Amino acid sequence: MSGNSFGKLFCVTSFGESHGPALGCIVDGCPPGLSLHEDDIQKDLERRRTGRSRHTSQRREPDTVRILSGVFEGRTTGTPIGLLVDNVDQRPKDYAKIKNVYRPGHADYTYDRKYGLRDYRGGGRSSARETVMRVAAGAIARKYLAETLGVQIFGYLASLGPVELEAVDIGSVDDNPFFCADPSRIAELETFMQALRKEGDSVGARVNVIASGVPAGLGEPVFDKLDADLAHAMMGINAAKGVEIGAGFRSIGQKGTEHRDEITPAGFRTNHAGGTLGGISTGQDIRVSIAFKPASSLRLPCDSVDNHGQPVTVVTTGRHDPCVGLRATPIAEAMMALVLMDHLLRHRAQNADVEPTAPSIPSSVE
Amino acid sequence: MSGNSFGKLFCVTSFGESHGPALGCIVDGCPPGLSLHEDDIQKDLERRRTGRSRHTSQRREPDTVRILSGVFEGRTTGTPIGLLVDNVDQRPKDYAKIKNVYRPGHADYTYDRKYGLRDYRGGGRSSARETVMRVAAGAIARKYLAETLGVQIFGYLASLGPVELEAVDIGSVDDNPFFCADPSRIAELETFMQALRKEGDSVGARVNVIASGVPAGLGEPVFDKLDADLAHAMMGINAAKGVEIGAGFRSIGQKGTEHRDEITPAGFRTNHAGGTLGGISTGQDIRVSIAFKPASSLRLPCDSVDNHGQPVTVVTTGRHDPCVGLRATPIAEAMMALVLMDHLLRHRAQNADVEPTAPSIPSSVE
Amino acid sequence: MSGNSFGKLFCVTSFGESHGPALGCIVDGCPPGLSLHEDDIQKDLERRRTGRSRHTSQRREPDTVRILSGVFEGRTTGTPIGLLVDNVDQRPKDYAKIKNVYRPGHADYTYDRKYGLRDYRGGGRSSARETVMRVAAGAIARKYLAETLGVQIFGYLASLGPVELEAVDIGSVDDNPFFCADPSRIAELETFMQALRKEGDSVGARVNVIASGVPAGLGEPVFDKLDADLAHAMMGINAAKGVEIGAGFRSIGQKGTEHRDEITPAGFRTNHAGGTLGGISTGQDIRVSIAFKPASSLRLPCDSVDNHGQPVTVVTTGRHDPCVGLRATPIAEAMMALVLMDHLLRHRAQNADVEPTAPSIPSSVE
Amino acid sequence: MSGNSFGKLFCVTSFGESHGPALGCIVDGCPPGLSLHEDDIQKDLERRRTGRSRHTSQRREPDTVRILSGVFEGRTTGTPIGLLVDNVDQRPKDYAKIKNVYRPGHADYTYDRKYGLRDYRGGGRSSARETVMRVAAGAIARKYLAETLGVQIFGYLASLGPVELEAVDIGSVDDNPFFCADPSRIAELETFMQALRKEGDSVGARVNVIASGVPAGLGEPVFDKLDADLAHAMMGINAAKGVEIGAGFRSIGQKGTEHRDEITPAGFRTNHAGGTLGGISTGQDIRVSIAFKPASSLRLPCDSVDNHGQPVTVVTTGRHDPCVGLRATPIAEAMMALVLMDHLLRHRAQNADVEPTAPSIPSSVE
Repeated sequence: MSGNSFGKLFCVTSFGESHGPALGCIVDGCPPGLSLHEDDIQKDLERRRTGRSRHTSQRREPDTVRILSGVFEGRTTGTPIGLLVDNVDQRPKDYAKIKNVYRPGHADYTYDRKYGLRDYRGGGRSSARETVMRVAAGAIARKYLAETLGVQIFGYLASLGPVELEAVDIGSVDDNPFFCADPSRIAELETFMQALRKEGDSVGARVNVIASGVPAGLGEPVFDKLDADLAHAMMGINAAKGVEIGAGFRSIGQKGTEHRDEITPAGFRTNHAGGTLGGISTGQDIRVSIAFKPASSLRLPCDSVDNHGQPVTVVTTGRHDPCVGLRATPIAEAMMALVLMDHLLRHRAQNADVEPTAPSIPSSVE
Repeated sequence: MSGNSFGKLFCVTSFGESHGPALGCIVDGCPPGLSLHEDDIQKDLERRRTGRSRHTSQRREPDTVRILSGVFEGRTTGTPIGLLVDNVDQRPKDYAKIKNVYRPGHADYTYDRKYGLRDYRGGGRSSARETVMRVAAGAIARKYLAETLGVQIFGYLASLGPVELEAVDIGSVDDNPFFCADPSRIAELETFMQALRKEGDSVGARVNVIASGVPAGLGEPVFDKLDADLAHAMMGINAAKGVEIGAGFRSIGQKGTEHRDEITPAGFRTNHAGGTLGGISTGQDIRVSIAFKPASSLRLPCDSVDNHGQPVTVVTTGRHDPCVGLRATPIAEAMMALVLMDHLLRHRAQNADVEPTAPSIPSSVE
Repeated sequence: MSGNSFGKLFCVTSFGESHGPALGCIVDGCPPGLSLHEDDIQKDLERRRTGRSRHTSQRREPDTVRILSGVFEGRTTGTPIGLLVDNVDQRPKDYAKIKNVYRPGHADYTYDRKYGLRDYRGGGRSSARETVMRVAAGAIARKYLAETLGVQIFGYLASLGPVELEAVDIGSVDDNPFFCADPSRIAELETFMQALRKEGDSVGARVNVIASGVPAGLGEPVFDKLDADLAHAMMGINAAKGVEIGAGFRSIGQKGTEHRDEITPAGFRTNHAGGTLGGISTGQDIRVSIAFKPASSLRLPCDSVDNHGQPVTVVTTGRHDPCVGLRATPIAEAMMALVLMDHLLRHRAQNADVEPTAPSIPSSVE
Repeated sequence: MSGNSFGKLFCVTSFGESHGPALGCIVDGCPPGLSLHEDDIQKDLERRRTGRSRHTSQRREPDTVRILSGVFEGRTTGTPIGLLVDNVDQRPKDYAKIKNVYRPGHADYTYDRKYGLRDYRGGGRSSARETVMRVAAGAIARKYLAETLGVQIFGYLASLGPVELEAVDIGSVDDNPFFCADPSRIAELETFMQALRKEGDSVGARVNVIASGVPAGLGEPVFDKLDADLAHAMMGINAAKGVEIGAGFRSIGQKGTEHRDEITPAGFRTNHAGGTLGGISTGQDIRVSIAFKPASSLRLPCDSVDNHGQPVTVVTTGRHDPCVGLRATPIAEAMMALVLMDHLLRHRAQNADVEPTAPSIPSSVE
């Protein structure tokens, strides 16, 4: 209830602070019989890691995951899967000077108001290090979805600040530190980030995530629509400020004749809906887009107050990401996997013996 | 788990189909001692009703609510509150012709895929009539929040298709059928809607909702951030396609120096965050913006398939809203109230005896 | 969270007070396609009704149930099923004199301590009338379990105060007002109850419930063992004070060689376990036994205090059951059905695609 | 949903197998500001440990607990508390011979039916080692309850097989390996156990747990009565077969005039109810009694089948408890603490601002 669990049937509960001894999570509800090794998880953690390029925080964490339970002789047993990642590159002393200060754009003030105290070292629980466990758990969901249903999930950087990017070659995303799907734009992004770092400022980003191969029928019609749960999942990622499904905010200016995705025996003509109707998947690609705010930890000074309400000037040094959105792609992919996995289990709980009466409509005529 | 409950501690569970005998809900977890009468709920239902203007569906439903339990001698007792609204203006026969047809942009196809059958009369459970109970339950939350904390929640139409609108006079919202907060633009909206109706098409909309007076400290830091739960709430409303908190998608293009809301002893300088940091309320206004897609029920024909996969042409007559966003304002306000109420109870469960160590920062210097 | 919902996937949420206008519930998560009519529910409600004999409360409630949603053309649709039963024989004035008095053995005092007020008419929400909705919802679960798995659930009165009873002919249970499964003992029970009524006192009871045909594999191994959830279900019935599974308290005196149920290819030799091992069903009969306390509403005076802490003498007149256990059989059966149904859905959510590696062991060699 | 979480607001989620690398849990929802060190937890773990006497399993596990998160500078922060205990004395090879055999009285068969595979080493997840984490989490709840409300929880062995025991001196419980509260009976218990071990058999036990100082008002009236949640908690402990509250099964033979606990201004005259009325605590002692079955792992041979359904003879050697009830006392105390803590948070979520209208009735006139 304190919000550290995600999912109702495929349920991840996580713990851990930025500068505590370790991060961990428990994945409860995983179907038995799934082949699972640490490598399956590690490869997704690698994609999220800091220190892969000079454009992200220079904290060096190997993020080596250990499976402590729930897997026997290489297969999941249906019992809870305990995962652990040790923190090894803590520098808690970096944070002594913010102990009594509320950094704008951070959770320092709200934690003190809510809890009466906070672990101020690196943001404690509010640090983006928390997302390690989202990715670890998401890797398990993703593997199950891929192996049993053929679901593929891929994300990419769709905007770096004002620079808008297209998905030209989704296979190239992991070849560059930006998760950019257009190889021709990498040099431009390098230049942009270099200028930004020199300036000392940060910038926002947009990340798109697409899931293909999702069967029709996932999602619950009213409060827990598939889109609603995706919005919950994505807006819960640190720094997220907006979520769209399909045409999203462009729907406002659309006419009904334009937006409604006409259907032919050969498939849906368009996918403005983003793969859901009435909160339930249609079999088309699920399309989500997320806005991330610019990081607030800057060496450029700003005004704030301390814990006695006195004015202070805050300058943040240390190891920070100038664009938190840059590393958000694998996190958003993981959240997509967790939502789909949870809804798959929810669906089959109620509807395991349903014979669909509707024919299967192909994903798209194109 | 089938998604008909909303909220964890202030929990609303609803039932009812568009052309069934009644709609109802159970509100569990309401604090005892709240003064509550049917009128308190009815007045919010009036704002949501169809048939208030020629711009909405002409179905005539009085939406008279009865309180069946949980209130004794005018005060809530802490036991579940049962609410019931009879459907009186059903015309199920209007729907015989869509029995075997999948209307594009509707849930017909996805229900048949998921459940193997559907109540096709007026969309059944996927009808916007379902939102009656959101508004009814929200009215209770809203009353508690207003009376105990002084929280005020107000929404308005921010875009009608391409027409963008400002909140000039929030007090004027209920004086027009559009929930428009700028009295000088009403004539323009009338003209726009008239042209649209003549054309036979529909259009999307943007609705903004603001909650002021929310105390700092509400929200849970990780998966159930206040923003994440708001996104879940709003994206679960019929026809919603996007949700923003604070600067939302504008954050993408912002620099960190612009976005981070600096703090002075006199208050926050700006509110790009939209009232939350690290998922927890700051005491500033909570600001949410929602995109609604254009309605798909049009008299202009479109292509689809029937339940044998054969091509059909769909023309929708009957009683429909040409802009579903037009009536979304009271629904979005209700969802805001439900989220805040739930998080208030969640907060005090864990933190009832916390003495905040941070000073209270005023909402805004302005 | 206020405890008016039961079940996680097959979830019943109820409302209603003893002397309010109506009782109702919402059954969420029911699989679609189940044939369901009001009669299917009504026949179980008949078994629970008061006024069937002179040994139960003389309140005359027809308990006519209406299905308000979730069923279309005679089959469940997968959307929430709203059920409503009007209260018609209220006599709230009977209760004016207990408004400020705490009846021993009743919830009057605890409600006032918890909520600061209470609906004192007939016990309000703490009345046994609340169990109407358990039976109504249980009837749906029972029908699904019977039709899809062949599960049969039957209960009977195993003790009426000091009078112990055997299950001689389970088919005779509905032929007498005691749910006694031994036709030869009915006269004895009549005599016992007549003497008790003359005396003005009440007595406890034991009810046994058995489910046969339950497939092996239902139940979750640790906190939500099938036995644990059954204990939760049964102990939550009004007046329940003890729950046993299988050998129950007799296990204390047993040796391991006696208790462990040996297995042969022809089946389990015994069923001391009561049908579960490690919290998971074995395929044997699930056996539960429940102790009910004697009713506290008596015309024989007793000491108590009023809401100012002053001593008072309480004499309860009005319409009451001298043995609440007498009507508990259909309620306990309903709770058994709800638990099994919920665990069936939980099981198939996680394990829908499991191929059991163990052979199916017959229920019993006998 | 797979049942590895306990509690709704003070929520414990655990993982770990008997012969895996470690056991762990996450405690989510703990109020911030509680002073907490590993020692606070360790001392309860010591009481549960094996190897403390020759009457329990000879497996030597130090059960050293580490706090991995949620505590900062000696106080809880309100974020999830990660706890870890390494397994150090595994002997998985002991179990190779039961790989394909279903031990009667164990979960071997049911796991294979449910999941299609199992970690057969020492029972895997179904091992009593799982209870380490119950005790660890319970220690935190217990500390909070004691420090903020003065709640004291104490349990004792009430029957060892046929030997019934009284609580003569509750303070002496930790002075003997039986958790016996009557020092004069220790020699008798030693003799009994010695004979039992020689015989090669096992025996059942009864454990009583009492919580004093619990404020009136905890518990939810209908499905989640305090008694119902206690029954769920206790019946979920390995080997539990029965649960009683207050007079329990003795209520069956009681008259209403005997059972109902009369009230005077000086307090309740008796406590047959066991501290709850209508599912809500009265302020009297909460009294629970639990039956544990005899252990099934015996060197005395018994009949069973293997995973091809063929008859086998099972003889269990290795390290086992001849009376699992002997070590159940600290586990049952921990479950009591978890239930009370959860209901405290649930109560204050809904009722934090309630002014009780009833006077506080003293616990007991005696």
